[in-house]
Amino acid sequence: MTTSHFDRIRADVEEELHRIFDERPRVPQHLREAMMYSVFAGGKRLRPTLVVAAAEAVGGNRQAALPTAAAFEIIHTYTLIHDDLPAMDNDSLRRGLPTNHIKFGEATAILAGDGLLTLAFEVMAEIPSGASVDPAALVRVIRTVAQAVGSEGTVGGQQADMENEGKQADLKTLEYIHAHKTGTMITAAVEAGGLLGGASDGELLALTTYGKKIGLAFQVFDDILDVVGDAKTLGKNTGGDQKKKKTTYPALMGLEESKKFGYALVAEAVAALTPIKGDTEHLKFLAEYVAKRAN
Amino acid sequence: MTTSHFDRIRADVEEELHRIFDERPRVPQHLREAMMYSVFAGGKRLRPTLVVAAAEAVGGNRQAALPTAAAFEIIHTYTLIHDDLPAMDNDSLRRGLPTNHIKFGEATAILAGDGLLTLAFEVMAEIPSGASVDPAALVRVIRTVAQAVGSEGTVGGQQADMENEGKQADLKTLEYIHAHKTGTMITAAVEAGGLLGGASDGELLALTTYGKKIGLAFQVFDDILDVVGDAKTLGKNTGGDQKKKKTTYPALMGLEESKKFGYALVAEAVAALTPIKGDTEHLKFLAEYVAKRAN
Repeated sequence: MTTSHFDRIRADVEEELHRIFDERPRVPQHLREAMMYSVFAGGKRLRPTLVVAAAEAVGGNRQAALPTAAAFEIIHTYTLIHDDLPAMDNDSLRRGLPTNHIKFGEATAILAGDGLLTLAFEVMAEIPSGASVDPAALVRVIRTVAQAVGSEGTVGGQQADMENEGKQADLKTLEYIHAHKTGTMITAAVEAGGLLGGASDGELLALTTYGKKIGLAFQVFDDILDVVGDAKTLGKNTGGDQKKKKTTYPALMGLEESKKFGYALVAEAVAALTPIKGDTEHLKFLAEYVAKRAN
Repeated sequence: MTTSHFDRIRADVEEELHRIFDERPRVPQHLREAMMYSVFAGGKRLRPTLVVAAAEAVGGNRQAALPTAAAFEIIHTYTLIHDDLPAMDNDSLRRGLPTNHIKFGEATAILAGDGLLTLAFEVMAEIPSGASVDPAALVRVIRTVAQAVGSEGTVGGQQADMENEGKQADLKTLEYIHAHKTGTMITAAVEAGGLLGGASDGELLALTTYGKKIGLAFQVFDDILDVVGDAKTLGKNTGGDQKKKKTTYPALMGLEESKKFGYALVAEAVAALTPIKGDTEHLKFLAEYVAKRAN
């Protein structure tokens, strides 16, 4: 994959996201604005791109993967809105813009998050037009995603993060938080794409290993960015982790060691793709993209 | 159905809810306690009972309906936790107990709600053990539920409720709020039960009409209870609607007219069941149960 391939998948995801909101005119206006404000706030669409790339790597059809791809971005957006709330991370800036509750008020921000989470499951349960998807595979995708983002996954990770704020968490706790807050969703995106693309058991295992490695790499580089990035390029307040005394990889193992660890994970992710016979160029590109963000 | 039949369905639902938490030991402890605290806080289990009664009325199997039945109680619980939050209704008492955020803190209450909403979809996407369920029907159930409880349903209703707080809403707005906050979920419970039970199109239409009528009746009697009930029997602060200047049926049409309206809806719900050839006694009992709460 080249950057232009990546951009083309992202354009398809963008179109799918617009279709989803266009087809739901009955959402109350203020709530609708709040939901769309955060969904279209300039995210990199990494998770949906992973769904599409994984589906296509095992010979699947892009059209069949797009609703679930969009659902991942919708779920990701809900987690950002709720994580930013005053009772949680209390952040006022996200992607260069005021956070959802600053812009729309706290009640609407909570409801926008709830509405987006629910919308994601509604979208996944649609049979995509012009694509044949096995309903049994769809049920498995929904189960996989729900497990990944629920109280044993993303929500559990955020809970652990909240409980450890202001404390000096050890490496084990840090790994739990990262694996669950970010890792499970990235792994699930790759797995869901595989399932929708009709992956064999061996291919699914390869994709899951790849997903786990880049999920962790993503968080390592995210921590690095919080130290080396600046608010202008990142579009969010940096140094926030340090201010909140959150445990991070750079704080625990130093900046250079963190980078080495991140690059090693990317290499392992790419190596894990070997058993897949189809075109894995897009997945390799995305693994390297995760690391490039920190350059 | 008699009260003892009703109690037996409720016991099965209770067991199913315990199974769901027993099978998920990896939820962080404090979050798990918060989720279970509200799920097992003595709800009447009306929605899951409707799922089971609808499935059985069209000849379906209870085992196949129980996961989705439990999912409805789980979703209902999440809406209560989020509605009670300081940024929303700011309630401190629910079912005679401190509300979730009073007991566990606001961050955990938000996450408990998020975790429960996600758990409901995870549970619906399980193939129930010992029961054969058509995956295509399951996908339709998930889509139906997500539509009912999302931003065009329950979440949209709560948004409209928030926007109209402190205002004197007209009857049209009141009906929108009630239909969406409470009605759509009750209607969807009946519809999901029908789908899982293998209802014909005619039966599904009859069930949906029944569900719409009792959904509205439920809210009418809920408003009446807020006026005539007392905090001790209800387990929540009464007169709250009046204090918050929320528009209610008694405020708009008077107490006696509201009761008449509620009873008429119950009668219409029961009449709607005529096309169903199977045993509709349980559904009739539940329609009357909705009204009896206000006596």
